[in-house]
Amino acid sequence: MNGTSTQQMKRYQIAKVYRRDQPAMTKGRMREFYQCDFDIAGSYDNMIPDAEAITVMIEALTALSVGDFKIKINHRQILDGMFAICGVPEDKIRPISSAVDKSDKLSWEEVRKEMVEEKGLDGAVADKIGEYIKLKGGQELCSSLLENAELSNNSSAKEGIESMKLLFEYLEIFGVLDKISFDLSLARGLDYYTGVIYEAVLELPEEIAPPSKSSKGSKEQDEEQTRIGSIAAGGRYDNLVGMFASGSSKKESNVKIPCVGISIGVERVFSILLKQAKMEEIKSNAVQVYVMSVRDGLLKERMAICKELWSHDIAAEFMYKAKPKLQNQFNACDRDHIPLAVIIGEQELLDNKVKIKNMGDKSSEQAGGLLYDRDQMVSTLKTMLKM
Amino acid sequence: MNGTSTQQMKRYQIAKVYRRDQPAMTKGRMREFYQCDFDIAGSYDNMIPDAEAITVMIEALTALSVGDFKIKINHRQILDGMFAICGVPEDKIRPISSAVDKSDKLSWEEVRKEMVEEKGLDGAVADKIGEYIKLKGGQELCSSLLENAELSNNSSAKEGIESMKLLFEYLEIFGVLDKISFDLSLARGLDYYTGVIYEAVLELPEEIAPPSKSSKGSKEQDEEQTRIGSIAAGGRYDNLVGMFASGSSKKESNVKIPCVGISIGVERVFSILLKQAKMEEIKSNAVQVYVMSVRDGLLKERMAICKELWSHDIAAEFMYKAKPKLQNQFNACDRDHIPLAVIIGEQELLDNKVKIKNMGDKSSEQAGGLLYDRDQMVSTLKTMLKM
Repeated sequence: MNGTSTQQMKRYQIAKVYRRDQPAMTKGRMREFYQCDFDIAGSYDNMIPDAEAITVMIEALTALSVGDFKIKINHRQILDGMFAICGVPEDKIRPISSAVDKSDKLSWEEVRKEMVEEKGLDGAVADKIGEYIKLKGGQELCSSLLENAELSNNSSAKEGIESMKLLFEYLEIFGVLDKISFDLSLARGLDYYTGVIYEAVLELPEEIAPPSKSSKGSKEQDEEQTRIGSIAAGGRYDNLVGMFASGSSKKESNVKIPCVGISIGVERVFSILLKQAKMEEIKSNAVQVYVMSVRDGLLKERMAICKELWSHDIAAEFMYKAKPKLQNQFNACDRDHIPLAVIIGEQELLDNKVKIKNMGDKSSEQAGGLLYDRDQMVSTLKTMLKM
Repeated sequence: MNGTSTQQMKRYQIAKVYRRDQPAMTKGRMREFYQCDFDIAGSYDNMIPDAEAITVMIEALTALSVGDFKIKINHRQILDGMFAICGVPEDKIRPISSAVDKSDKLSWEEVRKEMVEEKGLDGAVADKIGEYIKLKGGQELCSSLLENAELSNNSSAKEGIESMKLLFEYLEIFGVLDKISFDLSLARGLDYYTGVIYEAVLELPEEIAPPSKSSKGSKEQDEEQTRIGSIAAGGRYDNLVGMFASGSSKKESNVKIPCVGISIGVERVFSILLKQAKMEEIKSNAVQVYVMSVRDGLLKERMAICKELWSHDIAAEFMYKAKPKLQNQFNACDRDHIPLAVIIGEQELLDNKVKIKNMGDKSSEQAGGLLYDRDQMVSTLKTMLKM
């Protein structure tokens, strides 16, 4: 986003990002990590790009097959209204919000204790918050919240709820309502989020789910176990980008670039997918064909075959040795789970033939590969590779 | 490359890289920049992975259609031998090598002056170097260099030339000899390159080529003009990775991970491609279909159509406005060079129809789009998009 002219943009990136935060090596919480981002910048009608961002997040996580997940959503204006209604003093909103955000991993008693004992909130105020943040549901929660007189009379809360109602209508059109959970206890990043906020939470199978609301074990263990569920998050941040817009030093409040976006934790997704996969079935590279020789090295002939395969967009490799042993070539092929082998020897060269072996087929007639005419090699491989 | 167990790897990356170097903003020479790397790590028979790396570089640059280019190649051992034969003192090899490397952009008189006056080399030694670095050619240069008694009697030079002979044989099999120029004046990165070195140089059309070997203009201008030709480079670096291998602090010289690789300057390639392209024809995004409405906003109907197109892998967008003007929608479509538009109005909705407009067709019967049955929309678009 260079200069002041670009005020609308839709973009994604998968790249390293950085945070100034306390690293926790054992949890894989680093200052440098990979993130997949999708963002929409620009001034548009309420909740339209927000609905698209959430839909993109759901489509991405679905395509990644990470397992069942829910998107918790809430709205900054509802939180602001709720804290005002409950009577949280201005200077306590941020610490109290941070306590609220822990209610997915701590029991209400622990959250309340943090609010009252650590952060000095009045007990009655905490209890009132406790009633609100119990509220969870779907589209229907918008209507029931609007029926709540306290919320309806607070302009911030009312606007937030009406925005959520609109968002739900759009999410229904985009066909993703079944993944959405409206949750008043979600309270993330109040420093910069200004509107809708959301978090994708993996629904763990019961046998590996953390003990719910338990306070057993060390605090770190507990956090580790419960936080594994969160794999993506985002929200609307209307004031952040303008701060970095050129010219902002002169007229600080004039440049505004509203944004909504999502971030998917790439390493988190990888670690989930790796746990799901059977490790022995993971192919370490994309090679489709290994070109090998029997007896004589035939290096240049193997290179020539590779070049021919490459020129037909077949991913091929050969052993970088002048005279490799056959067994070593088979081992390399097996180690990297390369599905097909092209095998040549002096006789095949004389006859203008090649042997092609399906490495997955352990039957005896396949042992040394099946013989094909040299000029049938590429088409035969392409057929076998379903290209 | 984590731990000591991984000693063989073939990989590519397109990512940001960093260098501690004097930034030159006007030349786009930054400490952070994008680079495309391809590297092969591991101990293999001589010149086999080297030939593959050079072939990958040539295939990538060809696929990118950057224009005509040549790969200058040379070998560290030939340079070492040459400097020894000419009598360059040990402590002057690096500065003299750096002067030699400038002979593509400075006249021999200037290079000689730098060697003798700035770097204190004996004039006769400089002249002898001058004779060697004139030597350029193809595969045949290997044989003629081997016939040179001085080079053949220097074990380093001899090994280097024999390696180059082997490399040429492999490059011939890979079908890329026509791009290769063996050039004894190429002398880059002696700090870490240990074997073959190469640089891809764009062959500029005559009208925009820099004045050859000219000393006119400021030094910076000159450098700017001539250096634009270099778009990719690389070589063999056998000692670099081992320095960072775990365990190297204990037995420093024991861990060795030989590597050969290429780097393509992504920003450099982009700037060349942008110059080649006619700016007005550049599509700023990948959107294939713009979904718009006439008169009434029909926001939810536009969203539903987009969702349907997305689910069929058609890249579609709509205006994030409840009631957008038709002209604004057409303008957005034109601005982003979106090829097709789906247009709906109340009548089309009632009739279960959509209009599809080929935005490139300015004929009058196409003005408002052609009418199709709603259930033919996706297949019609896919046909028009050749999907």
